[in-house]
Amino acid sequence: MNVYWNEMELAHDPAFFLQRGNLRQHFEVPGRALALLEGAKAMGLTITSPPPVDPSELETVHAPDFLAFLEHASTDWRAMPDSAPEAVPNIHPTPEMLANGAKPSATIVGRLGWYTADLACPIGPSTWQAALAAATGAIAAADDAAAGRHAYALARPPGHHAYRARTGGHCYLNNAALAAERLRAHGADRVAILDIDSHHGNGTQGIFWERDDVFFASIHGDPNGYYPWYVGHADETGAGAGQGCTLNQPLAQGTGDGPWLAALDNALESAQRFGADAVVVSLGFDASEHEPLSFLKITADGFARAGQAISRARRPTAIVQEGGYAVDHLGTLLQRFLDGFGA
Amino acid sequence: MNVYWNEMELAHDPAFFLQRGNLRQHFEVPGRALALLEGAKAMGLTITSPPPVDPSELETVHAPDFLAFLEHASTDWRAMPDSAPEAVPNIHPTPEMLANGAKPSATIVGRLGWYTADLACPIGPSTWQAALAAATGAIAAADDAAAGRHAYALARPPGHHAYRARTGGHCYLNNAALAAERLRAHGADRVAILDIDSHHGNGTQGIFWERDDVFFASIHGDPNGYYPWYVGHADETGAGAGQGCTLNQPLAQGTGDGPWLAALDNALESAQRFGADAVVVSLGFDASEHEPLSFLKITADGFARAGQAISRARRPTAIVQEGGYAVDHLGTLLQRFLDGFGA
Repeated sequence: MNVYWNEMELAHDPAFFLQRGNLRQHFEVPGRALALLEGAKAMGLTITSPPPVDPSELETVHAPDFLAFLEHASTDWRAMPDSAPEAVPNIHPTPEMLANGAKPSATIVGRLGWYTADLACPIGPSTWQAALAAATGAIAAADDAAAGRHAYALARPPGHHAYRARTGGHCYLNNAALAAERLRAHGADRVAILDIDSHHGNGTQGIFWERDDVFFASIHGDPNGYYPWYVGHADETGAGAGQGCTLNQPLAQGTGDGPWLAALDNALESAQRFGADAVVVSLGFDASEHEPLSFLKITADGFARAGQAISRARRPTAIVQEGGYAVDHLGTLLQRFLDGFGA
Repeated sequence: MNVYWNEMELAHDPAFFLQRGNLRQHFEVPGRALALLEGAKAMGLTITSPPPVDPSELETVHAPDFLAFLEHASTDWRAMPDSAPEAVPNIHPTPEMLANGAKPSATIVGRLGWYTADLACPIGPSTWQAALAAATGAIAAADDAAAGRHAYALARPPGHHAYRARTGGHCYLNNAALAAERLRAHGADRVAILDIDSHHGNGTQGIFWERDDVFFASIHGDPNGYYPWYVGHADETGAGAGQGCTLNQPLAQGTGDGPWLAALDNALESAQRFGADAVVVSLGFDASEHEPLSFLKITADGFARAGQAISRARRPTAIVQEGGYAVDHLGTLLQRFLDGFGA
């Protein structure tokens, strides 16, 4: 099994984070990737630098204007007098503004708010390059899966909160969505995305909301008490052609291995009924009992059993890293998951 | 001319403000109101405490769930472990979330983002009481105007960026909109709101967007380079029954008295054609050449001439204070405007 990894992913090192009104050190740190890399190396897996992709490949998921914004945002921001080192929005277009004919502003302050959902995505000088590297790894993992070989993309920054044209929740480019589109382009008729990050994969949901060729299933902490707060409820099931192709299983705070694995089994059964011939896993470790915020209480053994369950689907699988912030535990959790999966 | 003022308006004293990625001292300070009060007193005007209004009066403009949120937000926020003294959002529902069936979260973090547009509206322990006092003054000024007497509401915090159910841009309750609704309730068939604050009155626009009984005209810095960034363009003219009842005149950075007063004349002519029988003025002094951000360059003489122009409309007028942050100049600017108006 290839592990796709590019050192450029370390170059993104955000500082600004606002939590409960307090400035905190950002916890989506480069050390997360290093810990996962150590875990993969300790298993003897092949660490591979993904081949470059044509930037137009990103347009399978993302809007061209959004990609142009992301690429140039840091330069534009730093050219503004008195700007902080990182681009951080202080306003977003509201529903009322959009109903009144809102347009993106010509200025970087306006465009930054236009293309971002929240304050968890500072854009520094290397953010674009790191996000591009992570996305490239996810696409390479999809290429492997399309050729019948499971693969793991050690993607950082993560991706599942990013929409077609909006960053959010530490995510800039939606790596899992790019992998799913790549699998489709390789000929998979139907792709299932299984998102077991502890946060609802709202960006991925939004991207495929009206699609009947990509099934999206997310198992996550109840948004009534947990990021992304507003979506991820069980009654969100897709729309139009995609009606019924979204499955959300929000779990109460404190939920442990048993109900979490039962929800995963349910998601796998639904993916099978959907007729998925390839699988993308959005693999977060933030459901771990060791997490700083530990909304869910999943053990290392639970992650091993999750890997086993997903392997029993017997579908070509691209595993894409999402969140997980208990740096000291990430290597072990990755090993247990991949061991269970049979890597 | 009565000047409506309630000391409770001083109790709101926000600290958190994020500008270009840097934490700054908030500049919507209590000293603004004190400077305006001194200016009014120096003119010998009667300073009057507005009579209380039934809280249900606020529902003429604002959603009941929003009002309940505002009233209890600070208490709910401070009950959360590790919360900062002021409630500041770090996420808002995005258009994609709303299209995917988003719901307000049960938690204060989620509800705070749900009901706010930006980071310029921290909610502290006294914010609700101050906003309520300011709104009460605007309603009292409307009562005077309905009885044929012009009046001035020294309203702080300001209001014109607040929507029916959303704070924004230092604004919590839309004082000018409440005054307009009060005038309608007193029997005015058609009310014109003239907004000469340097920022587009986006909240007021949104509230009356589809209404044909309230004309909204705003003269402001071009949103392409200035808050609120996304709305306030000339092509925003209302919708439905309100089509043509919104007039936006964005002005380029550096615009001075001449074009600003010409835009005001145009707004006044439009209000006359509309058939307004009462006027609400959203009076900001942030178009002043003395402003810290001075996007526009209006002189004290320009404000005097604006007062004269509005007085020539010969309609009962409720003047409601909005922005203006050059504290040392606010008293003089108010005197010049009210002198010109003939107070």
